[in-house]
Amino acid sequence: MYQPMSLQTSSMPAPSLGQRYRDVRALSMAIAAPLSAEDQNVQSMPDASPIKWHLAHTTWFFETMILSREPGYEPFDARFDAIFNSYYLGLGTPFTRAHRGLLTRPSATEVKAYRAHVDAAMEKMLPHAGPERRTLTTLGLNHEQQHQELMLTDIKHAFFHNPLLPAYRPASPEAMDATPALDWIEHKGGLAKSGYDGKDFAFDNESPRHDVLLRPFKLAARLITNGEYSAFIEDGGYARSDLWLSDGWALAQREGWKAPLYWLEDGQHFTLNGVRPINAGEPVAHVSFFEAAAYAAWAGKRLPTEFEWEVIAEAHPTAGQFLDLDHLHPRAANGETRMLGDAWAWTRSSYDPYPGFQPFDGKLAEYNGKFMVSQLVLRGGSCVTPADHIRTTYRNFFPPSARWQFSGIRLAEDIL
Amino acid sequence: MYQPMSLQTSSMPAPSLGQRYRDVRALSMAIAAPLSAEDQNVQSMPDASPIKWHLAHTTWFFETMILSREPGYEPFDARFDAIFNSYYLGLGTPFTRAHRGLLTRPSATEVKAYRAHVDAAMEKMLPHAGPERRTLTTLGLNHEQQHQELMLTDIKHAFFHNPLLPAYRPASPEAMDATPALDWIEHKGGLAKSGYDGKDFAFDNESPRHDVLLRPFKLAARLITNGEYSAFIEDGGYARSDLWLSDGWALAQREGWKAPLYWLEDGQHFTLNGVRPINAGEPVAHVSFFEAAAYAAWAGKRLPTEFEWEVIAEAHPTAGQFLDLDHLHPRAANGETRMLGDAWAWTRSSYDPYPGFQPFDGKLAEYNGKFMVSQLVLRGGSCVTPADHIRTTYRNFFPPSARWQFSGIRLAEDIL
Amino acid sequence: MYQPMSLQTSSMPAPSLGQRYRDVRALSMAIAAPLSAEDQNVQSMPDASPIKWHLAHTTWFFETMILSREPGYEPFDARFDAIFNSYYLGLGTPFTRAHRGLLTRPSATEVKAYRAHVDAAMEKMLPHAGPERRTLTTLGLNHEQQHQELMLTDIKHAFFHNPLLPAYRPASPEAMDATPALDWIEHKGGLAKSGYDGKDFAFDNESPRHDVLLRPFKLAARLITNGEYSAFIEDGGYARSDLWLSDGWALAQREGWKAPLYWLEDGQHFTLNGVRPINAGEPVAHVSFFEAAAYAAWAGKRLPTEFEWEVIAEAHPTAGQFLDLDHLHPRAANGETRMLGDAWAWTRSSYDPYPGFQPFDGKLAEYNGKFMVSQLVLRGGSCVTPADHIRTTYRNFFPPSARWQFSGIRLAEDIL
Amino acid sequence: MYQPMSLQTSSMPAPSLGQRYRDVRALSMAIAAPLSAEDQNVQSMPDASPIKWHLAHTTWFFETMILSREPGYEPFDARFDAIFNSYYLGLGTPFTRAHRGLLTRPSATEVKAYRAHVDAAMEKMLPHAGPERRTLTTLGLNHEQQHQELMLTDIKHAFFHNPLLPAYRPASPEAMDATPALDWIEHKGGLAKSGYDGKDFAFDNESPRHDVLLRPFKLAARLITNGEYSAFIEDGGYARSDLWLSDGWALAQREGWKAPLYWLEDGQHFTLNGVRPINAGEPVAHVSFFEAAAYAAWAGKRLPTEFEWEVIAEAHPTAGQFLDLDHLHPRAANGETRMLGDAWAWTRSSYDPYPGFQPFDGKLAEYNGKFMVSQLVLRGGSCVTPADHIRTTYRNFFPPSARWQFSGIRLAEDIL
Repeated sequence: MYQPMSLQTSSMPAPSLGQRYRDVRALSMAIAAPLSAEDQNVQSMPDASPIKWHLAHTTWFFETMILSREPGYEPFDARFDAIFNSYYLGLGTPFTRAHRGLLTRPSATEVKAYRAHVDAAMEKMLPHAGPERRTLTTLGLNHEQQHQELMLTDIKHAFFHNPLLPAYRPASPEAMDATPALDWIEHKGGLAKSGYDGKDFAFDNESPRHDVLLRPFKLAARLITNGEYSAFIEDGGYARSDLWLSDGWALAQREGWKAPLYWLEDGQHFTLNGVRPINAGEPVAHVSFFEAAAYAAWAGKRLPTEFEWEVIAEAHPTAGQFLDLDHLHPRAANGETRMLGDAWAWTRSSYDPYPGFQPFDGKLAEYNGKFMVSQLVLRGGSCVTPADHIRTTYRNFFPPSARWQFSGIRLAEDIL
Repeated sequence: MYQPMSLQTSSMPAPSLGQRYRDVRALSMAIAAPLSAEDQNVQSMPDASPIKWHLAHTTWFFETMILSREPGYEPFDARFDAIFNSYYLGLGTPFTRAHRGLLTRPSATEVKAYRAHVDAAMEKMLPHAGPERRTLTTLGLNHEQQHQELMLTDIKHAFFHNPLLPAYRPASPEAMDATPALDWIEHKGGLAKSGYDGKDFAFDNESPRHDVLLRPFKLAARLITNGEYSAFIEDGGYARSDLWLSDGWALAQREGWKAPLYWLEDGQHFTLNGVRPINAGEPVAHVSFFEAAAYAAWAGKRLPTEFEWEVIAEAHPTAGQFLDLDHLHPRAANGETRMLGDAWAWTRSSYDPYPGFQPFDGKLAEYNGKFMVSQLVLRGGSCVTPADHIRTTYRNFFPPSARWQFSGIRLAEDIL
Repeated sequence: MYQPMSLQTSSMPAPSLGQRYRDVRALSMAIAAPLSAEDQNVQSMPDASPIKWHLAHTTWFFETMILSREPGYEPFDARFDAIFNSYYLGLGTPFTRAHRGLLTRPSATEVKAYRAHVDAAMEKMLPHAGPERRTLTTLGLNHEQQHQELMLTDIKHAFFHNPLLPAYRPASPEAMDATPALDWIEHKGGLAKSGYDGKDFAFDNESPRHDVLLRPFKLAARLITNGEYSAFIEDGGYARSDLWLSDGWALAQREGWKAPLYWLEDGQHFTLNGVRPINAGEPVAHVSFFEAAAYAAWAGKRLPTEFEWEVIAEAHPTAGQFLDLDHLHPRAANGETRMLGDAWAWTRSSYDPYPGFQPFDGKLAEYNGKFMVSQLVLRGGSCVTPADHIRTTYRNFFPPSARWQFSGIRLAEDIL
Repeated sequence: MYQPMSLQTSSMPAPSLGQRYRDVRALSMAIAAPLSAEDQNVQSMPDASPIKWHLAHTTWFFETMILSREPGYEPFDARFDAIFNSYYLGLGTPFTRAHRGLLTRPSATEVKAYRAHVDAAMEKMLPHAGPERRTLTTLGLNHEQQHQELMLTDIKHAFFHNPLLPAYRPASPEAMDATPALDWIEHKGGLAKSGYDGKDFAFDNESPRHDVLLRPFKLAARLITNGEYSAFIEDGGYARSDLWLSDGWALAQREGWKAPLYWLEDGQHFTLNGVRPINAGEPVAHVSFFEAAAYAAWAGKRLPTEFEWEVIAEAHPTAGQFLDLDHLHPRAANGETRMLGDAWAWTRSSYDPYPGFQPFDGKLAEYNGKFMVSQLVLRGGSCVTPADHIRTTYRNFFPPSARWQFSGIRLAEDIL
């Protein structure tokens, strides 16, 4: 399996884990830095959370899952359990998800102090931590990285609902890219492996590594571009019910979808750098699974299964933009093979448990397993995923209606 | 593959298809016979349809898919396209699903005349029909059989919402069965086959027949009983969030679920034969996928995949109640292996297309494929499925929240 | 006060009340006669009820309010309390209003038998009845007359939702009327009387008769016509927010209102006689209070208060169509003064209690008083109001959004 | 008519209006002062607005209604029309009310600069302003005072939805007051006057002053206290449907109302000073009209009409707490007559136009008139109303379900 960065976690010596802790925690603060206290408090829909809540919840995770069992640890504020628990029913009744934006208190300043309090306790604990605490710490850091991506997609969604369309961060203009030809990577089918069994960290939903059976297929070497997607729109793609899944068609009619989320009139779209011209060569993003599937039907192809995606990605671990490159938007592949980064690829695979799946132990059993229904798997990471967070075995998942993530399209086709 | 009755369809000589047409069409009228015109018009939720609408829609199917192309055929009433098209967007805008109960006109008498009109034209056409019409006729009959099952589940749902709790048909009391021990059937895993490739009729979603990879497992030889399910309830199964999928827990709280749909106080439940004592030995029915999965978690087992179910059913094609036995309720297995009938088994498989799936041609492309998202596969048929309609390869599908079908629970377990 | 027919109730000799009982009860059955059992069961919105439910509920009213206290009376079916109580919380929990259409049982035939059972008991009781029972019987008959009007407006609403647009009863075509000039009746203002204090029956909400203070005003001698209302539409009345109350504008935008309910394309509208050309000279009906108020603003006038309406109606008790004339649609006034009939006039008066208002006693306290908020008063009766049911003091009331009644517009203006 | 402070507006010399402008504007900033930028951005329901939005909208009002017509005035930001217009459809499409909390930009700092920009232009204009501009300025100040009250009720509502229950401002504990006896003020009925015709400012909905006709009645000399309301609760007031209006009962069941909004368990309630013991002698507040009417029914009394309230208040212009006393909570009357302040009194009068009502001219026609339906009148002001904003003719109005205002109960009774 490919990992774009060496993941140095529970098998690492203590100092390194401490450094990694500091790095991940610092990145969260850096993401929040361009935002005012007001910006950090806003919640634009129940699926999105305020930046401040992300900062506090990831801190609560370390406090609850690790520090609460340390002798002598004093919680920063015992009342935070009632507001920063996300969905762990085993730990009490979580605060109503849709109301997170009402939590003006604690303030951004107090949340910063909360982070410092927990960081100090973690720094004190880590040099002496045994394997379990080190594993939990690694999990907490991966958890925080998941929220780093959400911080950026959530603030993008919130800013889009402000008629002033503020930019998260200004950017210099770029040259427009042309849409390059689409290359394909072939696979002859047969038995293959899927899932993680390495020594570093992976989520429970990526295991056990198991055999999968593939038919001969080919997979696109890059994501579909804005230019290609525009051809679908211009050909009436949003008006042809025969291309759509039934639920998707009903939703698109009800919501009046005519283009990806964030596309404006006159060839512009809204980005984390404000309103910019749509670049034909960049990967299309912010489409739902329904739009991805309709596009594939229009193109005479299909979406890949998550296993088809994974075997090709293991063989071609080639990456585009991640969060670390700080571009905050997908970039054109310019003829290269790109399996990771830029935008998540919707797969045709429902988010089901792998055969023999076992959830994490104890409180953490709720982490992934309880969401394994009515969602689709996405693969590959995006331009706002931390580079050392992604793996070729990594399974992201969202309902088929979700559009606010950097979710794009990669095509597949049977070889007959 | 097993079929409990010989399916004699497109490969049969003409007279036999004509007889089958008459038999299927007569059964629909027989199902409606105990019901008044009012009963036949009622719609208790958007997912259910009035009996009269079922009678008319299945007739419209023959008229639109076959007769409309016959030279000289005169439609019974050209306006019926606007009200009896279910979901074929390629054939015009269907009438709002939730409003079918508002169609007091045409009357039950007029719908009977509509059926007679179409039946006469079909009887005239069939002796001269070539392969395509014969195949379409067979499809139309299988389509009507699907609606026969729905007629019974839909009227059951409607009657349940009447405080008078009327019986579809009275029944004599029965002795109570005890809950027998649960036997298991083992399978050693490896490559196996799934899907239909016989010469008789099957739906597009059952093909192509393809290889599947199984791990060693065992499957329960019968469905879970009311008695076994009661133990789950008594152990607080509806109050333990750790057993439930997240969406299921939220729904159960919102709707106040405490037992299967149709269970009343004091050990009684509502059946098509009216209110009767719950029989501990009978298979439990009218549970959602969420309840089935929670039960399996509580029992320390899991639900089978649809492929696990299928390979065991091919090897053990043993059946309980179907519609033809006219009992209208699941019956106790009494120690026998029962893979088909009584109640559909929820599987842990999302309703995804088989590799290489191709929908039916033309107008009929909308039949199955466009529903392949956000649903789970059920297998095996129920006490209200026509016996000659079911196959071991047959894939039924419903959203995980659905409870008004005769849907039950069959457990599986890994062999380690 | 004017009453278009002599109301002969509690002060009458026994035989006359018996005859009136028979007449009113027979009219309800006559209204249901053109309708099939299916038609009688349908419910097109929570505000409307099935015809069969109206027939049963009005019968339940006599049974519960009068016969239940008669020694030896045997209820027809004790379970009917659970389904035919409308809104009397003091008598138990009423069946969910929106679910009345699910009551396919008891059948239309059984409801007919229920009516016969109660009628027989009432006929036996009435010759010996004292004042209280006679008063309650009169109330029950007025109650049933209110439901007679609703039977016709409710079936009209249901048929309108069937794409076949069935006619309640066919009608011969009529000549088109021109829109005549609008005459006005002046009043010099000052102290006047409002409310009922006669010896016959009136509802509690019409009393006590009390002084009201009026300013000089004039009132239109007839209702606004379809022709006049069309001028409002053509002048952009549905697109000019300045003419509308805030709630009305929001509702009209949300629902896409462009014309009165039941108006179709091409100058046609749906009536109880099926689809017919809109007659410019007929009073406009099926407008909400919001549309009536917007029309008045557009015309540079205002809606009258209920007291202005009443004092003019007492002085000019002139009537158009009532149910007894069996035309089932408003008719043109042709230059005559018409204060009663054809269509109810929305007034600018909120439905508040009169000073000193006392509700009926006991169980009947819930009859009117508990609805005295968030509704507007309508006056005058309509083409489907029984003629001997209306009075100049009669107060009808509906929320400002209601359109399915025969509700129209009568203008007023200050005299300065 | 009584005014607790001399209202010095359009008839005043220029310097005084300038001073008043500065005072009112400064008070808004003072109200916002204890709140962080996050606090100022939060919106807890569509009916409430963020503090920052109130600060900006009241500023936009001066800019749009007055300064935009000044030669040479440069708007602060032309895009603000799109976000700070409340409901003036004549001035463009207002930003979705429920989304005001999404406006993190402009920041609190920018809104402060916006206020300074407009204040500078107003200060420059006022010394030379003619009568129309002076009148509009006075209107703008009264408009801002209305929003000052809402700033406090809206932040109270938002803080209540935070489980940490933050206090707007801490307060020292107070002695508990006993519930004093209830005195009554009698009125002999007859013709009386209602409405404003003085020379100072009043809203359009208070005029014209006109004759009203009263029956002999008496009015409570003070508001109902928490202690008295507790007796209603303890007597099952929230469980007795016979006391309630139909809509109110349905709402109370749906929402699970058991006490006024902000009442907690164990004799505490949430106030702008945080959680405090409920003081039995203080006026009850935060009840809906439905609760006020149910209480009156339980007490064997009724609510007053707005005219009854007004004639007594003109004769007894006695006041309790206003915003200026800075207590932010109703205080016990301690045996004194109190007609104004502490809590608004729900009246039994629907918010209808006075006879001869004329809305303000031009853009301002939308100020009051378009809301005159489905609301009830409240009278008297509250503990968060600026003292120089209230008048005995002042008409406040809310839907009968509203509870987040300081709305209380004053009883009336007929004298027979």
